[in-house]
Amino acid sequence: MTYPIVGMVGGGQLARMTHQAAIPLGVRFRVLASAPDESAAQVVGDAFLGDEANLDDLRDFARSCDVVTFDHEQVPTAFLRALEAEDVVVRPGPDALVHAQDKGVMRERLAAIGVPCPRNRIVADPADVAAFAEEVGGWPVVLKTTRGGYDGKGVWVVRDAAGAEAPFRAGVPVLAEEKVDFARELAACVVRSPHGQAVAYPVVESIQVDGICHEVIAPAPELSEDRAVEAQRIALTIAGELGVTGHLAVELFETRDGRILVNELAMRPHNSGHWTIDGAVTSQFENHLRAVLDLPLGDPRARAKWTVMVNVLGGDYPDMYHAYLHVMARDPGVKVHMYGKDVKPGRKVGHVTVCGDDLDDVRARADHAAAYLRGSITE
Amino acid sequence: MTYPIVGMVGGGQLARMTHQAAIPLGVRFRVLASAPDESAAQVVGDAFLGDEANLDDLRDFARSCDVVTFDHEQVPTAFLRALEAEDVVVRPGPDALVHAQDKGVMRERLAAIGVPCPRNRIVADPADVAAFAEEVGGWPVVLKTTRGGYDGKGVWVVRDAAGAEAPFRAGVPVLAEEKVDFARELAACVVRSPHGQAVAYPVVESIQVDGICHEVIAPAPELSEDRAVEAQRIALTIAGELGVTGHLAVELFETRDGRILVNELAMRPHNSGHWTIDGAVTSQFENHLRAVLDLPLGDPRARAKWTVMVNVLGGDYPDMYHAYLHVMARDPGVKVHMYGKDVKPGRKVGHVTVCGDDLDDVRARADHAAAYLRGSITE
Repeated sequence: MTYPIVGMVGGGQLARMTHQAAIPLGVRFRVLASAPDESAAQVVGDAFLGDEANLDDLRDFARSCDVVTFDHEQVPTAFLRALEAEDVVVRPGPDALVHAQDKGVMRERLAAIGVPCPRNRIVADPADVAAFAEEVGGWPVVLKTTRGGYDGKGVWVVRDAAGAEAPFRAGVPVLAEEKVDFARELAACVVRSPHGQAVAYPVVESIQVDGICHEVIAPAPELSEDRAVEAQRIALTIAGELGVTGHLAVELFETRDGRILVNELAMRPHNSGHWTIDGAVTSQFENHLRAVLDLPLGDPRARAKWTVMVNVLGGDYPDMYHAYLHVMARDPGVKVHMYGKDVKPGRKVGHVTVCGDDLDDVRARADHAAAYLRGSITE
Repeated sequence: MTYPIVGMVGGGQLARMTHQAAIPLGVRFRVLASAPDESAAQVVGDAFLGDEANLDDLRDFARSCDVVTFDHEQVPTAFLRALEAEDVVVRPGPDALVHAQDKGVMRERLAAIGVPCPRNRIVADPADVAAFAEEVGGWPVVLKTTRGGYDGKGVWVVRDAAGAEAPFRAGVPVLAEEKVDFARELAACVVRSPHGQAVAYPVVESIQVDGICHEVIAPAPELSEDRAVEAQRIALTIAGELGVTGHLAVELFETRDGRILVNELAMRPHNSGHWTIDGAVTSQFENHLRAVLDLPLGDPRARAKWTVMVNVLGGDYPDMYHAYLHVMARDPGVKVHMYGKDVKPGRKVGHVTVCGDDLDDVRARADHAAAYLRGSITE
């Protein structure tokens, strides 16, 4: 066989959906998973069980692959440097990936390359947070642990110095950011290959509930062409300047006074790009694979006027399969994507996608399907 | 887990693509394959190695699944009846499947339900073939072994009694059919579920070269609405009358004098439906899974004005992966589907799909990509 082996570290739903994209490409796809019942390990023919926090396991896995990539950003930079020193091809590489792992490094670098961000600085203690609040015009301020946060974890909105103590208990540096008065959240997703080709997906609107992505609308409604191009340019600049290979999601604030500010980065397929499986000519997963293999990238354009993705979170009702009967009979056009994960309240266990011409209709259909699967509505 | 396990007998590309469709549905998918390097066994997490021609292996596999289905029609009817007697759920069941396994049984049944077919009858020997030729107005006539043929194998076009000897050597009954003066070949694909719901895909034109499908155009160009509805009705009638569960492909002749005649049946996902992966709201693979699980069926409508699928056959050049560089750089919109099979001349090793508004452009792009992958063109 002349087809290369792509190894993805992590066995979550992103690896699962990347496997789905790897099948038609004919490339070999292997995951490093911690257990056989992990989301991706259930479906990937070539699941390698091991502990990614153990350098020996990671090395054994990496040596069996032509290129190594990731379904999350938790692998320590030192491990990735060790692999690179042994001629493992790591994409994105540690020099890029650190910006998605450490929010302090990310903010410093984005400032250096002139990308607009909320005002921010590392803070030493609650008193320093109070000083920062004064610098940016008052409370509340946002505190983030520089490492280890995701889906709303590791983020605090604090209203006074007394409330600013919890973030310091994790023992990692804490970043303070101004609380941006945003009109909405956007995401600009791009994919960049080692030889420098890049493609930009349509800019989407992302609606969060309790810090977790609830809904993504592609393209972002009523976003001006200028604003969309500005958001795509920001993402392409970051990808190029940081040397990203693969998919880069740039989460953005659109402020009430008309500015675009960078909130977070993710260097891997991302929830804000799940709509592309059904809604774009080339999905984020396929383009991530093409990029890490240094193949020419696929067309990122939308296939429908509107595509809406709604996450399915775990609710109180564990049997989502039974709910298929109603959801599929009611709407033969809804695309269901389940991740093979046990249902736990608030856990992302799947998503649904609907494409169409009428945004209100498309949103209502996607919302209904997700809510019914969760069990929060019963008709 | 409350998700059912679907078992597919056979490890070819149809099982591989069904796996791809099973991932988002969240259902468990298992294949019975003969070797770990078979097309589907490479990618399916849950590949069961065994010999489908051995009833014990088949039974062990089937008992581990909630429903059993097929990526080909080679499993003996007696084995399927044995499984059903042991309460295995087999879809399609042996009473339906026999019509896709035995062309003699199929022709007799289609005549009984009034579906138009080429004139045909079982023939005893070359002299009887000559008699049949006289009955239908002269040579040539088409001879087919009633069992075991596919992709042009088991089919002969004979011009005299002397040329009619080969088909009888296989030791199975031989069916003679008039050589239809067809304008083109069409395919009508439908999916039917156990509770009787059915959906019909747009009727496609299928272009064969040397008895092997080369290209499928969806929808069939310049097919009148009446003719399309007639073809869909024929397929729905067959599915209902024969009790098909799952995907049914009905290969049709459109004659020069304006009739639609049934050529062949396949009760599984079929090459004439590969275009649906990229070109329809719900692919044939997803709808086959939904049907065998008795879930409501998905929308079969096309997503683009035109979708063209061209098969990639093995050529003289074994390294198709290297050809990706040119194919993907030249056309970021072409969808490549490779099956993980070693390249052998004439073997189906993949397909490409292009969607768009201009049929000539779409056909040219798909043809170019397939020819370049095969190695029959170099620029």
